[in-house]
Amino acid sequence: MRRSVATVCLSGSLAEKMHAAAAAGFDGIEVFEPDLVASELSPEEIRSLADRLGLTLDLYQPFRDFEGVGDDELADNMRRAEAKFAVMNRLGIDTILVCSNVGTATIDSDEVSAAQLRQLGDLAVRYGVRIAFEALAWGRHIDDYRRSWRVVQLADHASVGLCLDSFHILSRGHDPAGIEDIPGDKIFFLQLADAPALSMDVLSWSRHHRLFPGEGSFDLPAFVAHVLRAGYTGPLSLEVFNDTFRQTDVERTAVHALRSLVWLEDRARRVMGEDTPLLTDVTAPTGFDFVEVKAENTSSIEVLLGQLGFAFRGRHRSKPVSLWVAGDARIVLNEQHARDLAPHLSAVGLRVADVASAARRASELMAPPVHRRTYASEVPLQAVEAPDGTQVFFGGPTTMAWTEEFGDGADKMTGPVTAIDHVNMAQPWQYFDEAVLFYTSVLELDAHSGVEVAGPRGLVRSRVMSSPDNGVRLPLNVAPAIDESAPPAQHVALLCSDVREAVRHARGRGLQMLPVPTNYYDDLEARLGLDPSFRHELEELDVMYDRDGNGEYFNAYTRTVGQVFFELVERRTGYAGFGATNAPVRMAAQRR
Amino acid sequence: MRRSVATVCLSGSLAEKMHAAAAAGFDGIEVFEPDLVASELSPEEIRSLADRLGLTLDLYQPFRDFEGVGDDELADNMRRAEAKFAVMNRLGIDTILVCSNVGTATIDSDEVSAAQLRQLGDLAVRYGVRIAFEALAWGRHIDDYRRSWRVVQLADHASVGLCLDSFHILSRGHDPAGIEDIPGDKIFFLQLADAPALSMDVLSWSRHHRLFPGEGSFDLPAFVAHVLRAGYTGPLSLEVFNDTFRQTDVERTAVHALRSLVWLEDRARRVMGEDTPLLTDVTAPTGFDFVEVKAENTSSIEVLLGQLGFAFRGRHRSKPVSLWVAGDARIVLNEQHARDLAPHLSAVGLRVADVASAARRASELMAPPVHRRTYASEVPLQAVEAPDGTQVFFGGPTTMAWTEEFGDGADKMTGPVTAIDHVNMAQPWQYFDEAVLFYTSVLELDAHSGVEVAGPRGLVRSRVMSSPDNGVRLPLNVAPAIDESAPPAQHVALLCSDVREAVRHARGRGLQMLPVPTNYYDDLEARLGLDPSFRHELEELDVMYDRDGNGEYFNAYTRTVGQVFFELVERRTGYAGFGATNAPVRMAAQRR
Repeated sequence: MRRSVATVCLSGSLAEKMHAAAAAGFDGIEVFEPDLVASELSPEEIRSLADRLGLTLDLYQPFRDFEGVGDDELADNMRRAEAKFAVMNRLGIDTILVCSNVGTATIDSDEVSAAQLRQLGDLAVRYGVRIAFEALAWGRHIDDYRRSWRVVQLADHASVGLCLDSFHILSRGHDPAGIEDIPGDKIFFLQLADAPALSMDVLSWSRHHRLFPGEGSFDLPAFVAHVLRAGYTGPLSLEVFNDTFRQTDVERTAVHALRSLVWLEDRARRVMGEDTPLLTDVTAPTGFDFVEVKAENTSSIEVLLGQLGFAFRGRHRSKPVSLWVAGDARIVLNEQHARDLAPHLSAVGLRVADVASAARRASELMAPPVHRRTYASEVPLQAVEAPDGTQVFFGGPTTMAWTEEFGDGADKMTGPVTAIDHVNMAQPWQYFDEAVLFYTSVLELDAHSGVEVAGPRGLVRSRVMSSPDNGVRLPLNVAPAIDESAPPAQHVALLCSDVREAVRHARGRGLQMLPVPTNYYDDLEARLGLDPSFRHELEELDVMYDRDGNGEYFNAYTRTVGQVFFELVERRTGYAGFGATNAPVRMAAQRR
Repeated sequence: MRRSVATVCLSGSLAEKMHAAAAAGFDGIEVFEPDLVASELSPEEIRSLADRLGLTLDLYQPFRDFEGVGDDELADNMRRAEAKFAVMNRLGIDTILVCSNVGTATIDSDEVSAAQLRQLGDLAVRYGVRIAFEALAWGRHIDDYRRSWRVVQLADHASVGLCLDSFHILSRGHDPAGIEDIPGDKIFFLQLADAPALSMDVLSWSRHHRLFPGEGSFDLPAFVAHVLRAGYTGPLSLEVFNDTFRQTDVERTAVHALRSLVWLEDRARRVMGEDTPLLTDVTAPTGFDFVEVKAENTSSIEVLLGQLGFAFRGRHRSKPVSLWVAGDARIVLNEQHARDLAPHLSAVGLRVADVASAARRASELMAPPVHRRTYASEVPLQAVEAPDGTQVFFGGPTTMAWTEEFGDGADKMTGPVTAIDHVNMAQPWQYFDEAVLFYTSVLELDAHSGVEVAGPRGLVRSRVMSSPDNGVRLPLNVAPAIDESAPPAQHVALLCSDVREAVRHARGRGLQMLPVPTNYYDDLEARLGLDPSFRHELEELDVMYDRDGNGEYFNAYTRTVGQVFFELVERRTGYAGFGATNAPVRMAAQRR
């Protein structure tokens, strides 16, 4: 299907938005009137720029407060509309979005609104344009697509049809199944937006918090399937008002936007049972292949890994890179091209069923490929760059030989650490939603709902991406904007069969875990009614503890080196969380 | 009255918060339990730190989900409470906040809740502490202070009383007048928070958007008056959960917080008709005395002012400062101590009825005084620093002689510019709310409700501060966080009797106003049904236009020099706005 984007989704001038939409690969745009009004390009210049860029101008929007008014107001609105139709002719746009009246409606009557739209339709015919009437979720009288459809039916005019917008329908909880009863050729336009589940007035929600499909909580694949089943053949078009996307780099946001639409079309086709999905099928990764920490000098991390029970597996045969292993946990330390860089998380390797498919899907979703220099004898690796710059490598049966490049030591070491449990990745605030879409669409991870943790310098927003079997868990964090003194910490959580034993082991090698205050244990004992001797054991070892209906969690932290620290974790029975109640205490301790 | 602040209002560690609260001048604090739990200081150490700082520990909070539960749960809750009472004894805190049950209540009965609180009261007696029971706005059963008061009455226990929180009462729209019927000695604690008028779920509103008194839309002076009339004699205490204040500098926020409380107590006393207000009475400033632009080299501004019709009034007798005048508009250009600084707005002089009173009130509200070097023969100026660093000077009959320091030229020049209409001040996002309180409390300006304007790189939040007669208007703007390339623009709007004439005058002197695109005029003509010849006159002059029910607005902009630009404005009849619909077009044009 054709793909379009409303210019309000993007930052910059109208010309910048058009260039970015075309570069990303959109077929067309909706011209948001304020972007036109602020542009120094004439409508004719915009039209010819669109031609040069290969973009169609699919919709002129919005036209407000037209119907449901008295005669004088109607005459003035017809005059306003005629001026806009003339502009549309200059632009070469054939469809205008007319929103249900919010401000000036005085008459609550389907018949009156229909008659007025019919009159507008007659005028539209003279300009060769058509009216796509949309029920805004906060329309004064018409706020439901089923009512806007009744009005369009009553108007009974070939140039008057519907515009459907997923936000206006799903935010109100209206059942979209009824869309299938609307003839497809009367759906003149389809606007798509996702949104997080928020409980606030729908106008503010719409104006500030819309998201690209796949980033919020609406079931957009099912929604689009209803519209397609109705027979709609126009473009899938994004209209996302979002405070962040208004600010971010326009070219990047355009790619991000298109990725959401490609993902959505693929999902909608699957909902409809079509046998021609757009995207290569993959299943979620099953586990961590490795984590890479990069720095000019990784020796402080080496010391830490040794204390945690990792064994030095070997040095890479051709690069200043070393491999450390403990159980199934592999950590690569990379000093290549790392001048002046403090230790930071640079790459994550994930085990997938089929490396070629994973890479193909990533490419279909425009994930930027990663190029690393390889030599003939080395295993070629497939990797893409996540929105925060972390490189994500796909590992599978065909690539496992990479560890042999580090010599031929044993591939597993036994010790307290058995595997990588999760990798906590700090995200720049402006790319957080993009990261959610990246991990869900490219990797087929599930996005959990967000939580907030109070740190000593502000709230940290967190959202976990995980595979269905929890083999891969990636909590994404956004640190407060203001705390520029400390770069956001990233961490690697290492699964142990017994954290207390692992801490004793590390202590024996000279590692002091992050000190946890006594007050924490006083509160823990009071809160959970712990046995005092158990509490004292935890306290003595600086091990934190959590318990929920599913099971128990033990964890302990190392100090932070550069931007990286390590966590030792133990999960008993079905505990699936991350000790969120402990995080504020950990952050305060790290700050000391 | 005693003044207290909950540690959750401030950023940092518990010890940092205590130091900041004491330094600002608070009498006491509420200990927010998570701050204690994360602290490395023992309760005894916190107690002695408070002693050393001269702070009382007024409240331990919160204790959650106590009442309305079954017997097993109650037993566990009593055990939890006893542990907390023991901590309170170690801290030397005698009152604990017990919130109405949100999570675990199974029994919706005043009698059951009362009986359970009575049991808790008996336990409290043994520890010498008392229970302040609070109805949370989102309590499962008890969500109204009138119901929590019924429960406390039924509990009928000397150690069980009420905690009142302005947010929980006013956010639900509950009438606070009923507070006067509660005996003052049963109100154990009073928590105060303001909030903006938002339509969202009350829990998110409370957790993220509370403000200090005077910054939101609640009538807190009337609220406090009700509580004081009831006979409450405990501290006025702030409990403000706010995403921004959690991040800002703790010492600065503590002063800001205390300012809000001093202002509130003063207002509450006035509501009660007391003849001993806390603060010196002032009336709002009546007009602009001057605006100062500072730069290493102000010559580009001098050229601009000359083109706009300003006359060079003279050079200061002892400093590298010059004065430019046009009608009643005075602009000071200051090159002193300005190395490497581009032109920016450094000071605003405001005309007040009584300079000494204005300065005294500012000092009572802890506004930082400004020290400028003066010489014996020069008029001493009274000034304070606004939160964004702008210096605000108080001018009145006694200080008007300052212009004589610039020679003895005519004090008024006639030309198209007649006065300063408004001064638009860019605010750092983290000090926006503080600025609102500063201008309303120190200067007695009125804060209008906020608006948002879509710029090409994100939304600009704006809130106007004005005097009742509009002699002083200060729109405060917060620019999007991300656009670091361009420092936020500030501007001085100059009132003219005829903007079109003023633009022609400026053109005659070689000034090209900011070009406004033709599309803007096409839209304007369509929107307002303008006469084409009028539209063409505006377009030819790059003059923008707005009209509302009150009157008309004409305006035109200069280019930006450093961070400053000028606007020429003309107001016809009662137009009181700022041409907000024109602002996005202006911002796009400035970016070109």
